[in-house]
Amino acid sequence: MQQVLALPLVYEFSRHLEPRARVKSGARLRVESEDALSGQIRTPGDRRDKSKMPFSNPVAGPIHVEDAAPGDVLAVTIESIEPRDGQCATYTGAPRQLTEWLGADVPHGAHVCPIHDGQIQFSENISIPYQPMLGCIGTAPDWGVPTTFPAGPHGGNMDLVEVGPGCTVYLPVFVPGGYLYLGDAHASQGHGELSATALEMAAQTTITVNRIPKPGYAGVRLETADWLMTVSTQNSFERAIAEAYSKLILWMEADYKWDRWKAYDLLTQVGQISLGYYTNGTVAAKVEKKYVTAGW
Amino acid sequence: MQQVLALPLVYEFSRHLEPRARVKSGARLRVESEDALSGQIRTPGDRRDKSKMPFSNPVAGPIHVEDAAPGDVLAVTIESIEPRDGQCATYTGAPRQLTEWLGADVPHGAHVCPIHDGQIQFSENISIPYQPMLGCIGTAPDWGVPTTFPAGPHGGNMDLVEVGPGCTVYLPVFVPGGYLYLGDAHASQGHGELSATALEMAAQTTITVNRIPKPGYAGVRLETADWLMTVSTQNSFERAIAEAYSKLILWMEADYKWDRWKAYDLLTQVGQISLGYYTNGTVAAKVEKKYVTAGW
Amino acid sequence: MQQVLALPLVYEFSRHLEPRARVKSGARLRVESEDALSGQIRTPGDRRDKSKMPFSNPVAGPIHVEDAAPGDVLAVTIESIEPRDGQCATYTGAPRQLTEWLGADVPHGAHVCPIHDGQIQFSENISIPYQPMLGCIGTAPDWGVPTTFPAGPHGGNMDLVEVGPGCTVYLPVFVPGGYLYLGDAHASQGHGELSATALEMAAQTTITVNRIPKPGYAGVRLETADWLMTVSTQNSFERAIAEAYSKLILWMEADYKWDRWKAYDLLTQVGQISLGYYTNGTVAAKVEKKYVTAGW
Amino acid sequence: MQQVLALPLVYEFSRHLEPRARVKSGARLRVESEDALSGQIRTPGDRRDKSKMPFSNPVAGPIHVEDAAPGDVLAVTIESIEPRDGQCATYTGAPRQLTEWLGADVPHGAHVCPIHDGQIQFSENISIPYQPMLGCIGTAPDWGVPTTFPAGPHGGNMDLVEVGPGCTVYLPVFVPGGYLYLGDAHASQGHGELSATALEMAAQTTITVNRIPKPGYAGVRLETADWLMTVSTQNSFERAIAEAYSKLILWMEADYKWDRWKAYDLLTQVGQISLGYYTNGTVAAKVEKKYVTAGW
Repeated sequence: MQQVLALPLVYEFSRHLEPRARVKSGARLRVESEDALSGQIRTPGDRRDKSKMPFSNPVAGPIHVEDAAPGDVLAVTIESIEPRDGQCATYTGAPRQLTEWLGADVPHGAHVCPIHDGQIQFSENISIPYQPMLGCIGTAPDWGVPTTFPAGPHGGNMDLVEVGPGCTVYLPVFVPGGYLYLGDAHASQGHGELSATALEMAAQTTITVNRIPKPGYAGVRLETADWLMTVSTQNSFERAIAEAYSKLILWMEADYKWDRWKAYDLLTQVGQISLGYYTNGTVAAKVEKKYVTAGW
Repeated sequence: MQQVLALPLVYEFSRHLEPRARVKSGARLRVESEDALSGQIRTPGDRRDKSKMPFSNPVAGPIHVEDAAPGDVLAVTIESIEPRDGQCATYTGAPRQLTEWLGADVPHGAHVCPIHDGQIQFSENISIPYQPMLGCIGTAPDWGVPTTFPAGPHGGNMDLVEVGPGCTVYLPVFVPGGYLYLGDAHASQGHGELSATALEMAAQTTITVNRIPKPGYAGVRLETADWLMTVSTQNSFERAIAEAYSKLILWMEADYKWDRWKAYDLLTQVGQISLGYYTNGTVAAKVEKKYVTAGW
Repeated sequence: MQQVLALPLVYEFSRHLEPRARVKSGARLRVESEDALSGQIRTPGDRRDKSKMPFSNPVAGPIHVEDAAPGDVLAVTIESIEPRDGQCATYTGAPRQLTEWLGADVPHGAHVCPIHDGQIQFSENISIPYQPMLGCIGTAPDWGVPTTFPAGPHGGNMDLVEVGPGCTVYLPVFVPGGYLYLGDAHASQGHGELSATALEMAAQTTITVNRIPKPGYAGVRLETADWLMTVSTQNSFERAIAEAYSKLILWMEADYKWDRWKAYDLLTQVGQISLGYYTNGTVAAKVEKKYVTAGW
Repeated sequence: MQQVLALPLVYEFSRHLEPRARVKSGARLRVESEDALSGQIRTPGDRRDKSKMPFSNPVAGPIHVEDAAPGDVLAVTIESIEPRDGQCATYTGAPRQLTEWLGADVPHGAHVCPIHDGQIQFSENISIPYQPMLGCIGTAPDWGVPTTFPAGPHGGNMDLVEVGPGCTVYLPVFVPGGYLYLGDAHASQGHGELSATALEMAAQTTITVNRIPKPGYAGVRLETADWLMTVSTQNSFERAIAEAYSKLILWMEADYKWDRWKAYDLLTQVGQISLGYYTNGTVAAKVEKKYVTAGW
């Protein structure tokens, strides 16, 4: 196993264009990532200061995958996501769109939560199951410069709860080497990541990276033991949902020999939608594999 | 138990302003509703003809609830939803927004599915669990005329999978008597109701209707044994999600004594979002009751 | 000329299903409409009280047009819109979506403005040109009950600044007689009607109504001496813009013999978009007639 | 005058991080930019090939402005935009969202138009007034790497028809030197840039760049002799319109001493909205200066 150390990518990247690691297809890696709060909230009294580098959402990478070329797909299988420090943290920032209904009188709310025995100790009375995920995983987009902002056809800052242990993330390659990066781990997150700050966590993530040279179907996708999912980011959720379902149908057609309109019919009855950060327009369209492999 | 017969409401309503039934708070009713295809697809060869009355989405009602007055809330508990004819049906209509990715070359696809032993026989190889729901349930909106189009602060055509047996639907009253109506039963439906036509079913629905004179929190809500949910319909999903979560927070504050910003924090970590018909802008924001009743 | 008196339609309509007037195709009418504030703000000290009938946005109608049948189009030419009382009024209500940036600390702001010599005396220093328009004009939608909420394929509450003197509004007929209604006159309005309350005005509107039995192109449209416009209402503006431009292309194709893709090219270069109330998803796509009649 | 040569920024930028020019505040520059089609369509038979570098939308820059520091604003006044080759070009690509209504059977449609005497010879019968604008002008965003995709708080690919001769564009500085870039000139463009390809033009643009160290109001803004405009890019147009109008109000408050709610009232009556590329969520909120300077 090869270890890749934590690298704040976003804001410093223009000065760190070279890959931080070079791996071959098939490599198994342990990746350390800082939390999205840049590690500023470690104890209850800490405060968020966005004026310090890295300002926000540092991720680890970029990782150069040997022979990965535009047109390929990277299959990144997440084996485990472990808290680096045995805890996670959040804070309640400005309620933005919710101000209309809730006002904006938010108290200082940094909030540090221990993680043990598969539970997050959220408050005195509330434990939340530890269901870790990566908010951010992507390749360099086709404009050539890795960025965690925004999500798009290269993956990126998707904030989907499905991107956890057992999930394989398929990412198109746009630049030689792919330039994979990941981070923004959450110990738990609700749909839409309401306050934009989930239970943020410095993490050790174990992944396997495989290059798929001639994918039957490209496009950002997720696969688990039981589900197939396509991911779309669009200006409006309405359009993102239409695109994600369309691409799930095209995937079923390309790789599972489904008739297009029968797939359309099936998804109308059993498809599911999961939402990323609610102002980003990222959604996953989902179908249980058992239906897809059964055939019509 | 009082029986209310099937009544095609939408298109004929202008000629049937009078309530079809008058009940008292606490009444238990069995309501028969036609399917949203107006009963035109009963055998595989049948075709949809939208030029005949009732054109689409007939529902049963309106039901006048004695003493219900503007400001009250109706609590409608769904006990069971049974198929009237032992089957459901769907068809694949124009793919609208999906045309961009899939084209529009849709074959005739009326599709009749028997229902037995808790399963829908969807195709030769695929059985889908029978998970019935009502696509449409509402009161007369504040402009005074019941309509199943569109959804809004009066409920209406929400198409949420959560509106099934065991769910209590809270609906504001805007006109004397409330004018409750319901129908558009689905034997199963995916998130977003992709093709706009789920597994449509003529149904017998057993409900109990209670008037709540001074609600702690008004607004369209759903409650089951395990979940609290608020429903919002807005032009954009982004805004609907913001409103639905805001109202869930206000409900937790009003009826469960939560601090507003602690509720905001909690929902960021464990809130869920369910989508109605994906071009309607209807969403439900959800939280498990166990978190709410535990207190912070 | 036949005179139609002011009729509060929206909230009382369920008790006034019968047409208030019956006219023949070709009729020239003077229609009186109350202002959208229900006449509650006549002097500077007045306050808006939405608990009184008619609550909001009363309009005049419905008007039954003889022989108008589903599939026809009504062409309503607006000759003039005159202030009934020589003044208009507005007030600054809750800033809703703007609360996030502006807060919600709005003072009482009822505001009455005299109109004379083609100018609205808006404040001590500011005169605004009198550019009257109808916020609301429509037929009964296909669910059979006239309503001013929301806008849709039947017209309705569009709030487009182009609907003024010299404009012909084409409205599809969905029910026998069409059930035309109009009102919500504005002495002036900005794009998007920011606060939802423009310079509201009780008005006398002179119109001519013509029935078009076999329209080349149906759909809500506007026409002036210099412009062709199509109107679309959709959940997202993005989709409304796509639809409105598409329908303008289809109109150019149907009635002006344009090649579809040449029209697409032309509108890319010279098309314009006007927005109705900014949370309603109503837009007009516009093209100058001189381009259309020139041919490619 | 200092001349800056054409530089394809977008796709090559990761290999050209160093500024292409360094100027002082007050500099007057002539900037040459390639057209957004990367110069591939020069004669009617030419075809677009997006597989060649620069793939799309090359712009000129980045330009380092001496002493420009985060928190400053750059004021870029556009003096003139001239066609480099006496012509412009467009082509009709996939109709994307319009496919639903128009199908996708688009013929090859590269289209070269001479420009002379202030007119674009669009076709045999149609001349369009030459109304040049820059589709793209911006600074490096706060993630530090200039990009023409997407628009945002740094300006960028806004596609607003108002960004032409006589317009001053105010752009926030996020990185030392600002890293100004511009290009994507259009000889004319309709609202929304329907096909995503306007009358694209290699251009010579003359600008003056001034650094504003302590701006009264920051944020992307436009100013002409007669208009004040704020620019916002958001997922939904609805939200972009709300933000742009809010910021116009805050600008009137900060720099013109307007009462916030009186400005809100004024803009409701006379504000205008202009749309950029219709899937980008960019809008400009506009008010005539005469109203602002008159005071209430």
